[in-house]
Amino acid sequence: MPTPGTNLLLRQRVYEQLRSAIEQGRLRPGTRLPPTRVQAQSLGVSRNTVLWAVQRLQAEGYVQARVGDGTYVAQTITAPPAQGLAAPPRGLSRRGRLIAETAARWRPPLAAARAFRIGAPEVATFPFAVWDRLARQTSPQQRSAQAQYLDPAGDPGLRRAIALWLWASRGIRCDAAQVVVCSGSQQGIDLIARLLLDAGDEVLVEDPGYPGIRASLLGHGALARPVALDAQGLCIADAAAQWPAARMAVVTPTHQFPTGVRMGLERRQALLQWARTHDAWVVEDDYDGEFQYGSAAQRVPALCSLPGSERVLYVGTFSKTLHPGLRLGFVVVPTALVDAFAMARAITDRHAPGDAQAVLARFIDEGHLLRHLRRMRDLYQERQQVLREALADASDGALPLQPSDRGMHLLHECAPGSDDETLSRLAQSAGVMLAPLSRYAIASPRRGWLLGYAGFDAQEIRAAARVVGRLARR
Amino acid sequence: MPTPGTNLLLRQRVYEQLRSAIEQGRLRPGTRLPPTRVQAQSLGVSRNTVLWAVQRLQAEGYVQARVGDGTYVAQTITAPPAQGLAAPPRGLSRRGRLIAETAARWRPPLAAARAFRIGAPEVATFPFAVWDRLARQTSPQQRSAQAQYLDPAGDPGLRRAIALWLWASRGIRCDAAQVVVCSGSQQGIDLIARLLLDAGDEVLVEDPGYPGIRASLLGHGALARPVALDAQGLCIADAAAQWPAARMAVVTPTHQFPTGVRMGLERRQALLQWARTHDAWVVEDDYDGEFQYGSAAQRVPALCSLPGSERVLYVGTFSKTLHPGLRLGFVVVPTALVDAFAMARAITDRHAPGDAQAVLARFIDEGHLLRHLRRMRDLYQERQQVLREALADASDGALPLQPSDRGMHLLHECAPGSDDETLSRLAQSAGVMLAPLSRYAIASPRRGWLLGYAGFDAQEIRAAARVVGRLARR
Repeated sequence: MPTPGTNLLLRQRVYEQLRSAIEQGRLRPGTRLPPTRVQAQSLGVSRNTVLWAVQRLQAEGYVQARVGDGTYVAQTITAPPAQGLAAPPRGLSRRGRLIAETAARWRPPLAAARAFRIGAPEVATFPFAVWDRLARQTSPQQRSAQAQYLDPAGDPGLRRAIALWLWASRGIRCDAAQVVVCSGSQQGIDLIARLLLDAGDEVLVEDPGYPGIRASLLGHGALARPVALDAQGLCIADAAAQWPAARMAVVTPTHQFPTGVRMGLERRQALLQWARTHDAWVVEDDYDGEFQYGSAAQRVPALCSLPGSERVLYVGTFSKTLHPGLRLGFVVVPTALVDAFAMARAITDRHAPGDAQAVLARFIDEGHLLRHLRRMRDLYQERQQVLREALADASDGALPLQPSDRGMHLLHECAPGSDDETLSRLAQSAGVMLAPLSRYAIASPRRGWLLGYAGFDAQEIRAAARVVGRLARR
Repeated sequence: MPTPGTNLLLRQRVYEQLRSAIEQGRLRPGTRLPPTRVQAQSLGVSRNTVLWAVQRLQAEGYVQARVGDGTYVAQTITAPPAQGLAAPPRGLSRRGRLIAETAARWRPPLAAARAFRIGAPEVATFPFAVWDRLARQTSPQQRSAQAQYLDPAGDPGLRRAIALWLWASRGIRCDAAQVVVCSGSQQGIDLIARLLLDAGDEVLVEDPGYPGIRASLLGHGALARPVALDAQGLCIADAAAQWPAARMAVVTPTHQFPTGVRMGLERRQALLQWARTHDAWVVEDDYDGEFQYGSAAQRVPALCSLPGSERVLYVGTFSKTLHPGLRLGFVVVPTALVDAFAMARAITDRHAPGDAQAVLARFIDEGHLLRHLRRMRDLYQERQQVLREALADASDGALPLQPSDRGMHLLHECAPGSDDETLSRLAQSAGVMLAPLSRYAIASPRRGWLLGYAGFDAQEIRAAARVVGRLARR
């Protein structure tokens, strides 16, 4: 049970005061906050206490910092979240309200994936027939065995198959016993936050970055500390200077989500060094690391394959390599933590379904994953090309897209701080999903649009490109 | 983020001191603790603070109260838990250590279910062929749709099917929108604890009761308060007098786990009344409520079907009615909380697998669940009869079992406070699983053995009964 000190209690109180002032409209959207020095004086607290509260509000999206200017109440704060829940229902605990409020700002769309939704893999041509054939090969004895309560750490055959696969594909040498099966990367992050973080702990997150990770961290009472990115990704030296108390960093080093940059080796080594000297953890979210389109030799191995990566937890998922409806992923953890992860999984939801785990193990062992990924890599490269050409045509060159040798989406960036929401809203009305980069930004002024291409055929990509191109030309 | 007051901090410190004294052997197993009055004086804190710490240690199994005597350090505390983890690994957070330590004391066996494991349903004759036929009826379009990111609250068809089923089978009138699909009842409890409890909140739990629930509550920093049971189950009047601050009660009113008593109507109404007047929650874990063997009219409807049950959350699972490997269950929650539950599920692990949810919806809609349960009710009644006769024979009457018109296991109770572990250990060595009642007790002196019969055929039941009977006659 967390035991925050009185400092933390005071900070929390200042934070709650500011937040309710924003929520109740006493601080209106677009208002500039008084300087922290002034606030500290009027509240009779230290400036650090006010800074802490403002930074947390910023991490949660209540306020936005403008470089060289000041901090403003976010414009979007009074708009009710996507699907209702204007106010959290009575009866939730404080933690529950935090979860409800935080998650309300991260609402994955429920409708079927349409262009240009990011993170959606090709599913229409998924080899379901192969999958079903493997399922039918299960003997009645195996079927009964898979219908029991099972090992919370995962099916032993699947853990072996994943360990071998990681060595072949991502350069990671790990023992099958270090692989803990979970329900996609979201559960991986959840288990990590439960076991390695206490309420009030600071975690470095990429900015822009993935809101689902932030929501999970905040829901566990941790503080997500945004770190700006450059062309090499997250710079741990800068981040550690800004947030010296951080005890975890969550990164996407292969293909930063969503900007697409790759973390260079020096940065990687500095990150590992930081983890060692600070007794901190690095979480490597390798969400689309299998989609690197150069030759196998050109592919960048995982951060966690480097020497000195004992404090890296690798989060993998089959939601991109196979499909999200499968709900299978895994975490590779240090041997000393395996038992704790298995127990956390057991008290969370016991274990993954037996049949899907067994079929997936065979799918990997018999080479189907390798074949499927080869096919998908070719397909996604073609689709990226279709997208680039179609959008260049349709926008008369107004939305040029740089090619990328990896990933499942492209980013078109516009001027920092500019409005990227209007075009996205217009596109949405015209039936096209066009995520604005601002949706993934915390303090970052970076703006632009994300275009997922992996899950859509050429016809759909071209049709959506015509819609966006027409809107962009206006 | 929880903000416990200074009282709680002090209590926590006293608790940690006592715990580390036990863990490091300064307070040895079997030692009687000094009276709380004496401890309070020597530590310079209030007696309530010491009481709080001792009660928490008791709830976690570090110490045991002996009625009319005193509190003793548990005998089992120094024994390393079943599968290693003598000390929690370095690097876990405080919360993580709590999870690892708590869960280590609740370790479901991983081996295939053998007689007399409790909670294991019949799986050898499960209608997998029907299940597979329904799966094959899925159109390619449906298959693709199920392979996407889906609604965290669950497949709409499945939620409808469950709502209809609950009305027909358990007398619960709820809207499909109130049904939140989760991965078995363990996840149901987990989501409830996340959303409705803060660290330090007190929760009434049945004693003896289900350790998986306690582990989940403790892992979220809540305090599980044990409540003794009588022939009518949990008495909320006594419980509320003992634990006036409790804000939730978790109960198994249909068939108390593991003692098998049924909560009478007056007790039920008093419980609902308590929830209303205290703004508290009642969690109804209806883990085997479908296995009532009288005529349909004799079956007791769910607690949550009673008038005035607005503050009841109903937790259901398909782990007993179908099989545990499926990993599907659900929670029925008040309409105002549905959104928060969906969001908590989204940040925890997104949603349940698409294909299994769709097949289960059809399995229910087309009457297969009803047929399967009819068959299982007949089968389980026969098996209970086989167990009773076989054990009476084999033990020469030393282990008589009272018949029960519900459930999947029977309890043979012996003298309070007596040793029920030796026989269980001997049985284990002889290949028979015979859970001692003490494993499910917190402060309760009740002792005995639990014999699950549902998942084992007559031959296996008789063979295991011979082993146990032989051991009991010694």
